[in-house]
Parts: sequence; C-alpha cells; structure tokens
Amino acid sequence: MKAILISTGDELTCGRTVNTNSAWLAEKLLAMGIRTVSHHTVGDDAIEIASAIRMASEQADVVVLTGGLGPTPDDLTRRGLADVLGTKLVVDEKCLARIEEFFRLRGRRMVRANKIQAMIPQGAWPIDNEIGTAPGIRAKVGESLVICMPGPPAEMHAMFESYVTALLPPSPLAVAVKVVRVFGLGESDLCEVIGDLLGDRQGDVIVCTTVSGGLISLRITATGDSKTAAAALTDRTSAELTRRLGTLIIGSADDTLASVVAKLLVSRKQTLSLAESCTGGLVGQMITSLSGASQYFLGSAVCYANTAKRDILGVPQEMLDDCGAVSEPVAREMARGARGRFGSDWALSLTGIAGPDGGSPDKPVGLVFIGLTGPNTTRVFRHVFASRREQIRLRAARTALNHLRIELLEENSTAP
Amino acid sequence: MKAILISTGDELTCGRTVNTNSAWLAEKLLAMGIRTVSHHTVGDDAIEIASAIRMASEQADVVVLTGGLGPTPDDLTRRGLADVLGTKLVVDEKCLARIEEFFRLRGRRMVRANKIQAMIPQGAWPIDNEIGTAPGIRAKVGESLVICMPGPPAEMHAMFESYVTALLPPSPLAVAVKVVRVFGLGESDLCEVIGDLLGDRQGDVIVCTTVSGGLISLRITATGDSKTAAAALTDRTSAELTRRLGTLIIGSADDTLASVVAKLLVSRKQTLSLAESCTGGLVGQMITSLSGASQYFLGSAVCYANTAKRDILGVPQEMLDDCGAVSEPVAREMARGARGRFGSDWALSLTGIAGPDGGSPDKPVGLVFIGLTGPNTTRVFRHVFASRREQIRLRAARTALNHLRIELLEENSTAP
Repeated sequence: MKAILISTGDELTCGRTVNTNSAWLAEKLLAMGIRTVSHHTVGDDAIEIASAIRMASEQADVVVLTGGLGPTPDDLTRRGLADVLGTKLVVDEKCLARIEEFFRLRGRRMVRANKIQAMIPQGAWPIDNEIGTAPGIRAKVGESLVICMPGPPAEMHAMFESYVTALLPPSPLAVAVKVVRVFGLGESDLCEVIGDLLGDRQGDVIVCTTVSGGLISLRITATGDSKTAAAALTDRTSAELTRRLGTLIIGSADDTLASVVAKLLVSRKQTLSLAESCTGGLVGQMITSLSGASQYFLGSAVCYANTAKRDILGVPQEMLDDCGAVSEPVAREMARGARGRFGSDWALSLTGIAGPDGGSPDKPVGLVFIGLTGPNTTRVFRHVFASRREQIRLRAARTALNHLRIELLEENSTAP
Repeated sequence: MKAILISTGDELTCGRTVNTNSAWLAEKLLAMGIRTVSHHTVGDDAIEIASAIRMASEQADVVVLTGGLGPTPDDLTRRGLADVLGTKLVVDEKCLARIEEFFRLRGRRMVRANKIQAMIPQGAWPIDNEIGTAPGIRAKVGESLVICMPGPPAEMHAMFESYVTALLPPSPLAVAVKVVRVFGLGESDLCEVIGDLLGDRQGDVIVCTTVSGGLISLRITATGDSKTAAAALTDRTSAELTRRLGTLIIGSADDTLASVVAKLLVSRKQTLSLAESCTGGLVGQMITSLSGASQYFLGSAVCYANTAKRDILGVPQEMLDDCGAVSEPVAREMARGARGRFGSDWALSLTGIAGPDGGSPDKPVGLVFIGLTGPNTTRVFRHVFASRREQIRLRAARTALNHLRIELLEENSTAP
C-alpha cells in the first residue's frame, strides 16, 4: 500500500514556513501499514495542484493533500481537484449549514468568502472539520483515494484522527518500528561493522541511519502479517545490532546521553558536578533539560576566564601560565576542583578551542580535553572534533557525558 | 528564473525527520531573485531520484538536491545523477585527496566506504565541502543546472554560502529582504501595533512574522526593478517598524539577545558573570555560542543544589530556608554573589520552577526570578512563563539577557 503526499501553499514553496505536515502524516500512515513514497510541495496554483494530483494518483493507492482549502482567492485545492475530476464546484448544503453554525456559535459575522468553503467538486464528498471552517474533501481519482485536508496543523491532525483514518483502506501488512541510538563512532566506521544490515529496502526489515552531532539513530522498520511477526523482526535485528555494537549503543528512541547518565547515577545514588570552559554551560543545560535533575546534579562551574579557573576551581596560576588553559593538566585540575567545590561523587571538565579563532599548529581548533574524576579514578581524554563552533561544542559535551556513561557501566560490570 | 528542490532520504519520506533544508534553500534562492516553484522528497532509491531529476530539469532553470551523498549503501544521489547523465561514476582524484587529508588531519582512519564519496558521475564537477567529507556535485542536465549537496543542514548551509551562490545564474528580478527582530511582547499584542503593515501578499512589500521562544522575526520582502528600488521599500517599512516599536526591536537578522548584549558590553569595556539555577547553564551557553565571548564573559556559577547556592554564591542558609530557593531575596543574593565571586561589572541570576513538577499555588510552574546587578543598581524581576520546561527555560534565559540589554541601553542614554 503506497501513499504520496502533496502540500500546497506559496508560504511553503518560498520557504517562509517549514512543512511539518508531511512528516507527521508519513509517520501516521506508516503506523497503519501505508508506506509514503514521496512528498511534493506546490504553490497556490490550480494547474500545478491538478498536475500533482494526476501524477500522484497514477503512482499511489492513497494521495493526501494538505492546504489550499481556506476562504481566500489563493486557496485553490478544490479548484485543482475539480479540474482533475472534470467536474465543477457545487455548494454542499450540509457543509454550508455547518459553517453558518460555526460563526453563529462564536457570535461572529460570516463573510461571503466563507461560502466558498462549502463548495466541493461534484462527485466528491466532504469530510467534517470539528475545529475550523474548512471541510475536507474525499474523492476517487482512477484507482486512487484522494483526501484533501486543511493546512493548519491543528485542524489537519484533528481531521485525520477523527475521520480520515476510518476512510483509509485497511493494510494487509503490520508494521513495527524500533530505534537504537549509537554514540562514539563515525557513520563510515559504523558501516564497516553493520553495513550488511543496512540499505536493503526491498526486504521485510529496513534499517536506516541518521546522524546529528555525533549521535547516530538506527531506525529499524519491519513489516509482517501481524504486529507480533513484525515486532519479532525488529527485535531480531536489534539483538544483532547489540551483539555487534555493545556499549556503543546508548539506548532506544527517547534516550539521550544525558538521560542515560541520569539513570546510571540515580541507580547508584551518586551525584555529578561540572567544570565547563569551552562549552560555556552546555553540558549543564543538557543535564538539567531533564526534570528531576536535582537528584544527581549539583551544579557547574562555568569558568570561561582563567582567573575563574584559578579562583573558583583552584587551578594553579603557574599551571595555566606554563601549560595553557587548554591542556591535559588543567582539565585534570578543573575536574578535581569541581568535585571538591561541589562535593559530588563525580565531576567532568571540558577545556578546548571551539574556534573559529584561537587555534595553532599544536593546539588546533576543535582540540578539547575532557577530565573525568570519581571515587576511584581520575582520567583525561584528548579529542579533536571537526566542524564549526556549535558542532564542536555539541560533540564535546556529548562526548564528555559518554565518557562518564562508559565509566559508570564499567564500574557496574566490575562491581563485586 | 525558476528552481525546483529535491530532498532525498527514507528518514524524510517516512516522516522521522522534518525537512528544513527546502525552506532554508527557498528563502536563500528567493533573496537572489530565483523563485522556487516546487519541492519534492523521495526515498533512498536511485530510480526515484533519477526520475525526480529528469522531471525537475525539464521544468526549472535550477534543480537543487540535498541528501544521499554519504558513504553508506543507501546514499544514492550520485548514482541517480549518473543514470540521468547516462555516464558512470568515476573517482575524482582531487576529491579523494581532500577526503584523505580530512581524516589525516583528525588522526582518524579512512575506511573504504569514504572512497565512495570521492566518486562523481563522469561529465559532472565536484563542489568543495569545507566541513565534512562529502563533496557536492554540479552538472548540466539539458538546459538546467543541477546542484547536489549533502543533507546535514550545517554542511549544506556552508557549501551553499561558500560555493553554490557563485554557481547560480544572475536573475533579472531584484529582491530585497530585511529582517527585524523583536522581543518583549506577544504576537497578538504585536498585531495590535503593526497589524496594518502585515499580510498584504499581493503588494510590492510583504511583511511576515515568525515566532520562536518569545523572539519574533519580522521578515520584510520587497521586489523592484533594481536592488536599490527594492531596498528602498524594505528600508521604508523597517523605519516605520522602528518608529512604532522602539526598544522592543533588538536588532536585525543575525542579531540575538546574546549578540546585542555582547556588543553593548564590548563598547563599554565591561564584563558579565552569571548565577544560574533553573536554566542550568543555558544562559552561559547562549553567551559563549559567540566567538570572542571571553572579552566580556567571565563565567557562570550553575548552582542547582541549595548547598552550592550557599557555598559558592554566599546565599545565607537562613534565607534559603525561610524564603525558598525560588524567591526574590535569593535571586538578589545570587546575582550579588556571582558579581563578587567572578569580579565582573555586571551579573545576572535566574532561579525558578521549570516544571513539570515542583509547582505550588503561590509558586507555580513557570515562576522565575531574575536578578540583575551592576555598578550602580541591583534589581529583581518576577516573571511567570507559560508552556513547558524547555520553553520556560528558553524564555527565562532570553528575558534575563533582555533585562540587561534594556539596562545597558538606558544607562547609555542617560550617560553625560
């Protein structure tokens, strides 16, 4: 069962508005066993809309349009659909009554333009809209079911959930989706390890990868005769991924490095503090983005100035002068200083050159030292991150949390 | 001059990732006088990619593809383009050398998969990628210019700005765009003040608004026979906006609250420190997202735990016990404590309830006290922000910076 999505609106084609409707619809359709093969966005132009509907209905079982059902002259979806059907627009009396009622209930005056919204192509059927004035439209074009819905996301979501799901053909296939998140290796290295599991789009199981700030998401989508059969396929693939990737896997769909570290610290009843320089507070912000962080997070000494590294974290002035603020010994002292100052079980420190200025041949932009100190260990890791300032900071922050994650996992596994 | 955009990737068609590249590109192209007529999204399938390129190149002067240039087997844009050109993929030696250099500089091993990224269709040309491994590709298909860029937005933006703009044909239609950014009032209040300037989509000047985390962007787009004529129209509208909105306007397109505060501090040769609780480091992260922040930013004491507020910022334990951490006196002491501890000219503090838990009838979720202290003044502002945890934190952080901005502007205007 295949679907094609068409969005209409000049505000979309010219880029003023980011199209979120297509992604929302594709996920909903996939969960119903309907695979979206392409999305198309066209402007407020009846000829282009008609041509998109014609093309899509030749290729897909279901065509879903959003937008262009409003009352203004540039709302042309109903006109485009009428052209495809070779019929004219007629007033649907039930729709008209509903629109009149909508305005009456709200004590508002109905203007003539709103009457246009009660018009649908002859041979098509209206779809109720409970929260707005524009009804949707359903039609048959060749073998294909064409559904038109309003563009505003809230109206579209309500119409889809309340009415459209019941209009869609039942799919013979059940779909299961599972997401596995990986951190600590590049996309190309990942390919070496699990390349054979990727990219087979024709099979019952598809694994696709996306990467953002070093965090790789592997989305396993499986189809089967039943939900159970599909879920068994995603489980089998995820077990294989776990076997090959081990602790490189940080968790599933909703897990972040911060949430995984949080769970580990809470389970051990331990606390964390930070000493941040180049990340300027980013690691603290990530940790406190989770509600309940006060259980394990005491605070972060963001020491951007060297004087602050000295006065607040106790890094010796001599060390700052001799080694520079971006150095292995300073990272170590920052971590120790934060642990002592906040009285936490664990502390992480970050000092680096986020760029674009400040690099040198032996200390290039992207160089970051990450210090980690805990009850039984103190270590410093050296990294050189590629890309620009924001990406370097993001990767450094995530990498610091990842070092702590690995340390906590290893301590757990060697515990008596 | 017409453009068509093609995005590739199963993560887009299946709805897991919202496509932001198309809107970004359409805006950039429009500013160059190139109108985008449609967007198309297809999956990781060489045949579909080839068919989309063929169709687009028949209709548009410029076809821009994003995605599918990575090293994994599901990256099929170069294969699709080669099919359209009727040629095969060949290794571009210069590209290969650049990729090898990329890995060498970072001390990483180059795996075989990365070599694929140096392959481009015979008869096409590579486009440099300064921040990633995948080169872009440029080709001529019929009369149409086809440009392929990587999917990750940061890489795509950099490649577009650095190289692609120079490859695009000049346009006869002049377009001027000016963005004015506003902070400190709601979108509906804004409408009361400037509603008559919005919404005329047929005129030579269009003003449209977008809002995110309380920051409103007013985008003025004007068309004219020449750059000068178009720019005169945007200037006239922006002057009218300035007249009506005054200091609610924080600046233009690239300005953020952090960058405006930075300019004001640098011009006064003054420094800033922070004491953050509910924002957990977010304000520091915003300030240090700008290169050169060390000129005016000393650091942030992120004191999530009450013990840290006491030990590091010197907030009296009695005050914490009597008033609670989220209170006007504690915000005042936190700001004073940070100013003293870091030795800065100015300090901001934030203490609040970001939720979703921890609210009470007299201290609801969203309540935030913002302390501001400087050479001649100490003040505390009380706010209740609506919405969810992340939005509350973001608005609180921006509002704190906005209080400092207003304070610095007022001091400037009353200076002798």
